[in-house]
Amino acid sequence: MVVTFLSDYGLDDEFVGVCHGVLACEAPGVPVIDLTHGIPRHDVRAGALALRRALPYAPPGVHLAVVDPGVGGPRRGVALRCAEDGRLLVGPDNGLLIPAAERFGGVAEGVDLATSPWRLRPTSATFHGRDVFAPVAGHLAMGASLAQAGRQLDPSSLVRLELPRPRREGATLVAHPVAFDHFGNAVLDAGEPDLGRRPGAAVTVAGRPAVVATTFGDADPGALLVYVDSSGALALAVNRGSARDELRLTLDDEIRIA
Amino acid sequence: MVVTFLSDYGLDDEFVGVCHGVLACEAPGVPVIDLTHGIPRHDVRAGALALRRALPYAPPGVHLAVVDPGVGGPRRGVALRCAEDGRLLVGPDNGLLIPAAERFGGVAEGVDLATSPWRLRPTSATFHGRDVFAPVAGHLAMGASLAQAGRQLDPSSLVRLELPRPRREGATLVAHPVAFDHFGNAVLDAGEPDLGRRPGAAVTVAGRPAVVATTFGDADPGALLVYVDSSGALALAVNRGSARDELRLTLDDEIRIA
Amino acid sequence: MVVTFLSDYGLDDEFVGVCHGVLACEAPGVPVIDLTHGIPRHDVRAGALALRRALPYAPPGVHLAVVDPGVGGPRRGVALRCAEDGRLLVGPDNGLLIPAAERFGGVAEGVDLATSPWRLRPTSATFHGRDVFAPVAGHLAMGASLAQAGRQLDPSSLVRLELPRPRREGATLVAHPVAFDHFGNAVLDAGEPDLGRRPGAAVTVAGRPAVVATTFGDADPGALLVYVDSSGALALAVNRGSARDELRLTLDDEIRIA
Repeated sequence: MVVTFLSDYGLDDEFVGVCHGVLACEAPGVPVIDLTHGIPRHDVRAGALALRRALPYAPPGVHLAVVDPGVGGPRRGVALRCAEDGRLLVGPDNGLLIPAAERFGGVAEGVDLATSPWRLRPTSATFHGRDVFAPVAGHLAMGASLAQAGRQLDPSSLVRLELPRPRREGATLVAHPVAFDHFGNAVLDAGEPDLGRRPGAAVTVAGRPAVVATTFGDADPGALLVYVDSSGALALAVNRGSARDELRLTLDDEIRIA
Repeated sequence: MVVTFLSDYGLDDEFVGVCHGVLACEAPGVPVIDLTHGIPRHDVRAGALALRRALPYAPPGVHLAVVDPGVGGPRRGVALRCAEDGRLLVGPDNGLLIPAAERFGGVAEGVDLATSPWRLRPTSATFHGRDVFAPVAGHLAMGASLAQAGRQLDPSSLVRLELPRPRREGATLVAHPVAFDHFGNAVLDAGEPDLGRRPGAAVTVAGRPAVVATTFGDADPGALLVYVDSSGALALAVNRGSARDELRLTLDDEIRIA
Repeated sequence: MVVTFLSDYGLDDEFVGVCHGVLACEAPGVPVIDLTHGIPRHDVRAGALALRRALPYAPPGVHLAVVDPGVGGPRRGVALRCAEDGRLLVGPDNGLLIPAAERFGGVAEGVDLATSPWRLRPTSATFHGRDVFAPVAGHLAMGASLAQAGRQLDPSSLVRLELPRPRREGATLVAHPVAFDHFGNAVLDAGEPDLGRRPGAAVTVAGRPAVVATTFGDADPGALLVYVDSSGALALAVNRGSARDELRLTLDDEIRIA
């Protein structure tokens, strides 16, 4: 059994290390894989999409995820079992875990961690990664049952995110950036079938000429390209540059591809 | 036995990875937990406070810490055993290790690593993390005795940090930021008893209205709050913002809370 | 057997975590050491030099390295065995692996991964770290033979980097920064013998007074120093400052040391 861990804690502070410490106490010898801790602060949707992209490549295990602007407030902490391969997701009930769960058949069973016997005491109001989610993940990774982790909840009561959707206006695809990577590439809310063009086709993106490409090198340095990224999403890039900077993109912008 | 590792090396270079390599050579199979490598460069006090906050959550083991502006000069390298649970601290003798040691009953025994048989040869003048501290930590994690690591030293000779202290001026608490986290929250040198107000109370902080709160969501977005952070320290935050930026705080500023 | 991993993926995205996930699937229980993921984007030479500096401190194993501006294009993916201690290098054939291989006796044997049976299917055009290099590294770490990884290649056909070289003009050494670290220290393409001065000597660097030093503290705060860094290279630093910023250095600048 492995634990994976994703958060918006960043690596500048000791927060991630402290959660690793708690995991090492509760689940000695269990490997922990850091998926990323660079989710933009409080951006639940970016965290949810990164978790959904990453989990198909991780072995089934316990998947801890914390992007939690409502920590200490009324939002629930939860642990969920996926229908398909039994993998377990642990984190706040704010939509973060659901897109990943849906990749694995949806939520078969879930518990509310409010009364979990595994919480650290005293439980802080501001660091549930350390005091609630990491100890629960550690116990589950040691083989404890989900039913022991907290009180059963109704999966239909889980909070879901509103995700944008692309649309067609005649021959034009209107899509939205839902994430940017480290290179400035923009991931759109659309997939290959939405584009309906073949590699090599000339298109316009936000009024600028672009090429439909398979990889970055198919475009000249500095040129704009539309491609299917490694997660199957339609994406925009500038070869050896930053699409985000050159098109001055922000999340949820309407982008017209014609 | 686990090794934990904290430094100001950052993650942009191979320094941290090289120390992990040395640990893997000297202590194959021993898990290494990175507490953080984002301590501001050469900020021994910030490193000392982060180590003190983190260690209570890590299993007892060998705790490597390197924030070392005096590397290669006359400052000593040391390995220390804590009185309380025997955990071992390895790093420079510049005060970095002492606040954490005091959380665990103080230093029961220490050695000077100047003549340690475990140093890598040749020993560089600028990278003792790799050449002195990591190999010593690795040998200790394999069960070698502290006495073999170097020459016994007098614990009262260890360098200690000057830490700021809060004070009262009538009803006003005068405290100082001693660290900022990734979110811009400011950790003060005071604790809950110093404040003497209950959650919900209205106060002024540096002349601005603020609320005493339990968690971030107790204040409106953009509002300033005083709270007890997850390490028990008094702290300042702006809900969904940065207290550091909005109050233009720097370390050791005098902050009046009335 | 351990796996080490170096890339320019950064830690803001889930790319590194996803490769760890693939490694955990293919090589469960094998420790993975992150050397660094902070190589400047697409800077193959900086990656090659960092790998060469780091590998002598890592146990022999499988060494995965990905700085790959030509991903998805005609450049080959390769796995190489070093003559000296049999360590295996996996990554793109763009020069990244060769300086490290030469530290270990050169390339004894190599394979082209174009037809590797271990590639993930479908293989993306833009993320060979995940789809080609990580699964190959995982299989090799489990003890599979290099010959099974792909089709044998002629080591003399491997792409090599042009590296700058220092030169002498009378008593003046002309050298070039080939990397900067997190502290702004500049690593030159020269070594101690090229300088031919002893610690304590006064020199000029780019027309400014500097001292030949053993460690940072040998110079006053703010003063410029020339020293032999922990990898044996000649380097420039400003004590408690940044040589890069103060001398406004960029890669490959000509620097005259007299």
